[in-house]
Amino acid sequence: MILRIDRLQTELPPPSDPDPDGAAAVQELMGGRFGELSTLMNYTFQSFNFRGRQGARPFYDLIANIAAEEYGHIELVAATINTMLTGASDSPNGDGSLEAALSGVKSARNAQQFLAGGQGALPQDSNGRPWNGDYVFSSGDLVEDLTHNFFLETGARNNKLKVYEMAPHPAARALTGYLLCRGGVHQVAYARAIEKLTGADLTKMFPTPRIPTEKIPECRPHIERGDHKRLYRFSPQDYKEIVAVFNGPHPETGEELEVVDEAPEGALPNDLPPQPAVFAPDYAPEEIGEIAARLRSSAGLPKEPTGRVANEGTGLVDKVKEKLT
Amino acid sequence: MILRIDRLQTELPPPSDPDPDGAAAVQELMGGRFGELSTLMNYTFQSFNFRGRQGARPFYDLIANIAAEEYGHIELVAATINTMLTGASDSPNGDGSLEAALSGVKSARNAQQFLAGGQGALPQDSNGRPWNGDYVFSSGDLVEDLTHNFFLETGARNNKLKVYEMAPHPAARALTGYLLCRGGVHQVAYARAIEKLTGADLTKMFPTPRIPTEKIPECRPHIERGDHKRLYRFSPQDYKEIVAVFNGPHPETGEELEVVDEAPEGALPNDLPPQPAVFAPDYAPEEIGEIAARLRSSAGLPKEPTGRVANEGTGLVDKVKEKLT
Amino acid sequence: MILRIDRLQTELPPPSDPDPDGAAAVQELMGGRFGELSTLMNYTFQSFNFRGRQGARPFYDLIANIAAEEYGHIELVAATINTMLTGASDSPNGDGSLEAALSGVKSARNAQQFLAGGQGALPQDSNGRPWNGDYVFSSGDLVEDLTHNFFLETGARNNKLKVYEMAPHPAARALTGYLLCRGGVHQVAYARAIEKLTGADLTKMFPTPRIPTEKIPECRPHIERGDHKRLYRFSPQDYKEIVAVFNGPHPETGEELEVVDEAPEGALPNDLPPQPAVFAPDYAPEEIGEIAARLRSSAGLPKEPTGRVANEGTGLVDKVKEKLT
Amino acid sequence: MILRIDRLQTELPPPSDPDPDGAAAVQELMGGRFGELSTLMNYTFQSFNFRGRQGARPFYDLIANIAAEEYGHIELVAATINTMLTGASDSPNGDGSLEAALSGVKSARNAQQFLAGGQGALPQDSNGRPWNGDYVFSSGDLVEDLTHNFFLETGARNNKLKVYEMAPHPAARALTGYLLCRGGVHQVAYARAIEKLTGADLTKMFPTPRIPTEKIPECRPHIERGDHKRLYRFSPQDYKEIVAVFNGPHPETGEELEVVDEAPEGALPNDLPPQPAVFAPDYAPEEIGEIAARLRSSAGLPKEPTGRVANEGTGLVDKVKEKLT
Amino acid sequence: MILRIDRLQTELPPPSDPDPDGAAAVQELMGGRFGELSTLMNYTFQSFNFRGRQGARPFYDLIANIAAEEYGHIELVAATINTMLTGASDSPNGDGSLEAALSGVKSARNAQQFLAGGQGALPQDSNGRPWNGDYVFSSGDLVEDLTHNFFLETGARNNKLKVYEMAPHPAARALTGYLLCRGGVHQVAYARAIEKLTGADLTKMFPTPRIPTEKIPECRPHIERGDHKRLYRFSPQDYKEIVAVFNGPHPETGEELEVVDEAPEGALPNDLPPQPAVFAPDYAPEEIGEIAARLRSSAGLPKEPTGRVANEGTGLVDKVKEKLT
Amino acid sequence: MILRIDRLQTELPPPSDPDPDGAAAVQELMGGRFGELSTLMNYTFQSFNFRGRQGARPFYDLIANIAAEEYGHIELVAATINTMLTGASDSPNGDGSLEAALSGVKSARNAQQFLAGGQGALPQDSNGRPWNGDYVFSSGDLVEDLTHNFFLETGARNNKLKVYEMAPHPAARALTGYLLCRGGVHQVAYARAIEKLTGADLTKMFPTPRIPTEKIPECRPHIERGDHKRLYRFSPQDYKEIVAVFNGPHPETGEELEVVDEAPEGALPNDLPPQPAVFAPDYAPEEIGEIAARLRSSAGLPKEPTGRVANEGTGLVDKVKEKLT
Repeated sequence: MILRIDRLQTELPPPSDPDPDGAAAVQELMGGRFGELSTLMNYTFQSFNFRGRQGARPFYDLIANIAAEEYGHIELVAATINTMLTGASDSPNGDGSLEAALSGVKSARNAQQFLAGGQGALPQDSNGRPWNGDYVFSSGDLVEDLTHNFFLETGARNNKLKVYEMAPHPAARALTGYLLCRGGVHQVAYARAIEKLTGADLTKMFPTPRIPTEKIPECRPHIERGDHKRLYRFSPQDYKEIVAVFNGPHPETGEELEVVDEAPEGALPNDLPPQPAVFAPDYAPEEIGEIAARLRSSAGLPKEPTGRVANEGTGLVDKVKEKLT
Repeated sequence: MILRIDRLQTELPPPSDPDPDGAAAVQELMGGRFGELSTLMNYTFQSFNFRGRQGARPFYDLIANIAAEEYGHIELVAATINTMLTGASDSPNGDGSLEAALSGVKSARNAQQFLAGGQGALPQDSNGRPWNGDYVFSSGDLVEDLTHNFFLETGARNNKLKVYEMAPHPAARALTGYLLCRGGVHQVAYARAIEKLTGADLTKMFPTPRIPTEKIPECRPHIERGDHKRLYRFSPQDYKEIVAVFNGPHPETGEELEVVDEAPEGALPNDLPPQPAVFAPDYAPEEIGEIAARLRSSAGLPKEPTGRVANEGTGLVDKVKEKLT
Repeated sequence: MILRIDRLQTELPPPSDPDPDGAAAVQELMGGRFGELSTLMNYTFQSFNFRGRQGARPFYDLIANIAAEEYGHIELVAATINTMLTGASDSPNGDGSLEAALSGVKSARNAQQFLAGGQGALPQDSNGRPWNGDYVFSSGDLVEDLTHNFFLETGARNNKLKVYEMAPHPAARALTGYLLCRGGVHQVAYARAIEKLTGADLTKMFPTPRIPTEKIPECRPHIERGDHKRLYRFSPQDYKEIVAVFNGPHPETGEELEVVDEAPEGALPNDLPPQPAVFAPDYAPEEIGEIAARLRSSAGLPKEPTGRVANEGTGLVDKVKEKLT
Repeated sequence: MILRIDRLQTELPPPSDPDPDGAAAVQELMGGRFGELSTLMNYTFQSFNFRGRQGARPFYDLIANIAAEEYGHIELVAATINTMLTGASDSPNGDGSLEAALSGVKSARNAQQFLAGGQGALPQDSNGRPWNGDYVFSSGDLVEDLTHNFFLETGARNNKLKVYEMAPHPAARALTGYLLCRGGVHQVAYARAIEKLTGADLTKMFPTPRIPTEKIPECRPHIERGDHKRLYRFSPQDYKEIVAVFNGPHPETGEELEVVDEAPEGALPNDLPPQPAVFAPDYAPEEIGEIAARLRSSAGLPKEPTGRVANEGTGLVDKVKEKLT
Repeated sequence: MILRIDRLQTELPPPSDPDPDGAAAVQELMGGRFGELSTLMNYTFQSFNFRGRQGARPFYDLIANIAAEEYGHIELVAATINTMLTGASDSPNGDGSLEAALSGVKSARNAQQFLAGGQGALPQDSNGRPWNGDYVFSSGDLVEDLTHNFFLETGARNNKLKVYEMAPHPAARALTGYLLCRGGVHQVAYARAIEKLTGADLTKMFPTPRIPTEKIPECRPHIERGDHKRLYRFSPQDYKEIVAVFNGPHPETGEELEVVDEAPEGALPNDLPPQPAVFAPDYAPEEIGEIAARLRSSAGLPKEPTGRVANEGTGLVDKVKEKLT
Repeated sequence: MILRIDRLQTELPPPSDPDPDGAAAVQELMGGRFGELSTLMNYTFQSFNFRGRQGARPFYDLIANIAAEEYGHIELVAATINTMLTGASDSPNGDGSLEAALSGVKSARNAQQFLAGGQGALPQDSNGRPWNGDYVFSSGDLVEDLTHNFFLETGARNNKLKVYEMAPHPAARALTGYLLCRGGVHQVAYARAIEKLTGADLTKMFPTPRIPTEKIPECRPHIERGDHKRLYRFSPQDYKEIVAVFNGPHPETGEELEVVDEAPEGALPNDLPPQPAVFAPDYAPEEIGEIAARLRSSAGLPKEPTGRVANEGTGLVDKVKEKLT
């Protein structure tokens, strides 16, 4: 089971110019065959289906623990897409009528981000097709599952690099810069696991694709902080045997790989402003605000929300609202 | 982001007689339109896409927190399927040859549990079709998302009841007994949320389907423990405003709903024995065991695995192995 | 638009021995590529999309009118599947508990007929996969659409013959006997339409598959009644120009084709008994009956239902209920 | 079975400026999860699979009768898409050569409207993916099916509102104005049915999404005519017990709900002009016209087509043709 | 089994202006229901599944031999798409950084041609959906399979004509001009086969769609060469009985059909230049070149590649490279 | 383009006892994610999309040539499935009526092998779902495509081993024995290619899954013949540079890898007998035989079929026919 923490693994910028076609491209990192839903679900199912786990504990722990990190990745991709779509619809007219508030996105590549979703992320790829369970490989054969995972991370790195090139929006850049760094760690982890089991030295294949991670400016801060060589343990008590696999030199830099015995601190998410044209969270969100305040008060909660967001007090929501009207 | 805990939310029995067609039926609770992947992913995406969350914090917290619990549900469904499939293949012959070790399951309903998976769970439904992203509804409109969630839990309750009737295997019964109880809590939570927002009293629709939960013997221990009226907070620090929504009387029993300020204790998972016929985790799992022991030792870890399982020291793995040879 | 008549196009027998795998096979005639959903939707979309229809009225009328008949075919297939599944689950125990009421169908080929449906028809094929819109061909090119339709009816005839061979259940036989006869009429109609437009004489290809319709005993009553050479006009006022295409000799018998200026009389459907194990229409259907009686009375309706069924007063429902308990 | 009437349920404007991306958006109302194919097929299958219908006749009649109305809705959506696509391709050159007659729509969002279809409607959604049978929910459990239907109509209302905002083309506006009104009636009908069965008052949830229907200018004429509070009986003789459920005050206006004992009069469809670039109905449609005239004459039919269209005698076809050349 | 020849069946022009949306349209001819993957796989499976082939040898040979030709067609479609996409991404910057090299195609219709593929062809249709096995019809019934094939070729001709109109890019025109000619031959072959078996004269339906092939300028050179009336035998020794079916007059021109006893000579493919922005074949392709040279030398192969391409020595690769930087 | 040879790559036994569920399992090797359609289509698309092929010729030749061999593999899988299904339906009755000739396979796992196909192979997997284009990986990045291919062959080996265990039918055993041997060669070839490009020695991972190929009795004759270390060149003139990659010691046996400069001789296919119950090739196949004989004679062909089959003159067809009646 899991505990959930209401923070993102890295900081994302607040909404700026909306970029619907960029957001449609970022969907590949969500619901594509090599998207974060795939990494999450592959490692999750592999850990669920792991037989004889006591006898192979370091490998079980490795897969289970990386699965936990991946949850934070789908969260980041979703936050990025939402950020890029903020402001893409018009606000309703002064008289409250809807009018043609979505006609500006009539030719946007992924119409369902608006029609099915509320200017938000969908479990779809960059061609608007849903993620599906056929993308999960969980054969039970440990060497084979690890081989798959190494290949999956390679494909994921390819896709992140290309989305980086396709969507220069600040949120997409912050996302891909971070994911390239962290995905690289997983690629190393699986290579190392295969080496431990078979002797085959896959680290010679790094970087693959052959562009060094450090050439990506948005990766550099993460590399400088050391995040390219660290595996975090995403659990209060468990998965302690990852150290038995994740060690030795980093294939690109030669630095010693490290296990960090807790989750990263992360960053507060932005509270993205309502988009009334798509009824998110409502056509008239103020009413919900009033009800929520009343409920909070009846329950003896403080007047202000107890949850924290990055942009509280900064008036970001109001500023974005203002800009869009 | 999440922290992962290597425990199940409830106890499952160890493997007994294998039941491949029963396991194929339980897949509906994994990858069916109303399966646990659907509840997990619906609430997860709705929480990711929630706009104006500070203004609607109690509702955001509710959805985000239930999403966290659902992760534990897909874990339980997977463990159940693995339990039911344990022993369904023959062990390899004495001479190590594979022979016809899977011919006994040639007519099993879901061939891919053996051919694609390693006698394990797949992200598929009871007809062997993959879960897909079209099962996720995340419109951004809060009242509408909650209406969906109430409907989704209703459909899920229906499916759990029918799987209960179709698969009398002890593991399936333990699973459905627990899930019926917990899914019922979520059904109540969403009904209550809709009532708080609109005034419509959906609790009059309970139970739906109209068979009372307490009529299911396997639900009773959970009801007696009070788990039918409790919402656990699956987070170290966050989602504290669920109390503002989850309160009032339980629709079936009239007892006061409760919020528990931490995750349930849960139970240790069984370490299910290797199934060499499907190479899970290997054709010759002992070799992996030796490598793991060596790695553990090099890393300065204790000789025995640090992770805990329900059946350690009981020799269950050996017993099952014995029985199957 | 349409008017709906609460009768079947032909008579079906009441439930007898349940036959789940037979019902799974009949699904091919519902949701298979050549099933009745395909004929219905192909002709419906072709009529909706027909451009320049005044200039080509006889052809528009032909396609639109056959589309109307096809609606009755999906209705018959559904009624057949429901009939074959009646009694396939056990009744709940005397104490009202569900127990293992579906364990008898754990190995049935299409689990979703029970788990997703209520022992009823699904829009799926014989392998349990959903019908989808890719099965619709509507190119707008009249000759090409007609060529497709001739091919579609040929494929449909093939599938009906094989389902006939695979499912000797009385309901399946009544269904396929009727559909082979009526589908044959449509095959002729499209062949004739192509001939009128291009001069190509496709009637030389009849029968295709090459087994004569009259060799099927269950087709004979329909042939004797003349239903193999008649096109009914399924409209109060419209589609009168079908006579301009549907004429000349029948390719197999040489008899003159006929247009009948109204819909066939058809037959009353059976009221199939509740199946409480799957909650259809409820776990305790009597309660619904009481509510319905009250509502009927408040609305000034007669005490007895105004709708007619084939088995009213015959106690069929009770008899089936009895037999199953 | 059904009778088909060659009229639309409401009037649509003749073709004006083509709008391919608008037409691609309108596809969501055809083949999306909440499109009219879904409402049609859900209620149709639920009526086919209804067990114990005599005992629950008012509810059976309600579902069966609304299913009949939905057929008219897919017809309207198709007519709208065809209208919006009319004129989107160039006419062939003077010399009859095809040249680049479709290059103007090379970047249109849904290429298959042109390549697979004949500038017409497809059973697809707004991302160009086919409708499929997984969108049908037919559990057999009456309360649950009705809960689903209420949710389905809510999702459908959401999608209609958004398509309204996205596609300001006159045909799309006429369509969504009408469908919002009629879909609202169905939403009320299902809410009322649930209330009659369980006592839960869902009418407090109206309107959902929370924008009042009367704020949409294109809905007003239908509201003024009273169409927001009327359920039509789409059958010569059957489904008379809908009055037992559809009664009481309208949730938004408080007016008494009404049952109208026949289908609405509707309007004649426009005969949309041929689009020779896509061979609809032919590369040289005049030839078909000549053949049709001959066939009509041989069959003793009048010289002019017997079918009626909205634009007969107005030369609309010629005018559009002129404009496009 | 097959032997593969590294030549195209016809000549294609070298890359000129990139045309991503044109390339997205051409995908319909690859992975659409009527695309070349469909013709290839339909005839391939029909030949594999052909029962009693000695007794029906001329028909078996016909289907098996046309299947062989179709392989060359998917090759041509792929080469065309690759040609049209060449140059659509920017070259990396002088400093080797990737920057926004794909931002110019952010709104291209098929994002996966860049993100999943390497600016190359995918097994998808023009709406970006994958080809699937449901497009294969292989009933085993010879007359029915041939009827299907005639219909399939008709649909394919329709799609080729429309892609011709939609994508005036020189490569697309060269492709469709050739495929229309060759597909026409297959349409004739299947019509003739049906006639031989049933007597039905389908040649009266030609041309269908009704635009004569010779009206397409890009078809004329192929017609002049006689390729519209020739069936090539794509086998060293087998399929000699195609002459027993493919004979008689051509339906459009009246000329005698001919069997050519060998494969056509074809043309050398262009060696399309690397696209480093998508890492095809690498981010730094020169390195691969050096490795290849070394391997060639170790293996005793000549210094220059032994394989032939159309543009060797012409510096085309360099010229394109130059133009794009 | 290709030339086709009417021989199988290895010998298959004639039909013996039919085994429908075994045949349903073998479908995984046809249309599963790791089936032969996947290996065929992956390498085919990768070769089509290969950019800068002159500079990387040895690798291009390797992929293109292996693609050619894979065609023979789908052919073998299809022949195996057809063999296993032969005799699974009853022959029609003496009076030629169809009766219940398929009722014996009503519970067979893959109903569409009978209802859609003619007791033949379908492009589906072992759960009856169609192969689809998402299984193709063609990124254009050479190292990554090769990594994929190594993983794909590993997954394919896993699936072949399990089908071996599940389906002990003689045809399935002959198939898997051969494919394991040949797939192993491809696994080695891709490992070697990666090593040449990156230096990573993947041969240490062999065998994977960890059961040595030589432990499979049905592999041994192929190993003894040397087929485990040979790459055949499937082309009259091209792909000569495969020698530059495929060399060095075999990872399991240490023997030197060899390139054979032509295709293997292979074996004649069996002519499988008609199955009239499914109309393959006809309800009354003799008629086709007479027509074929006439056509052959008109075309000046010899009286006996020119094509060769394994069982000509042996009366196998008659014997099987006899046995089945």
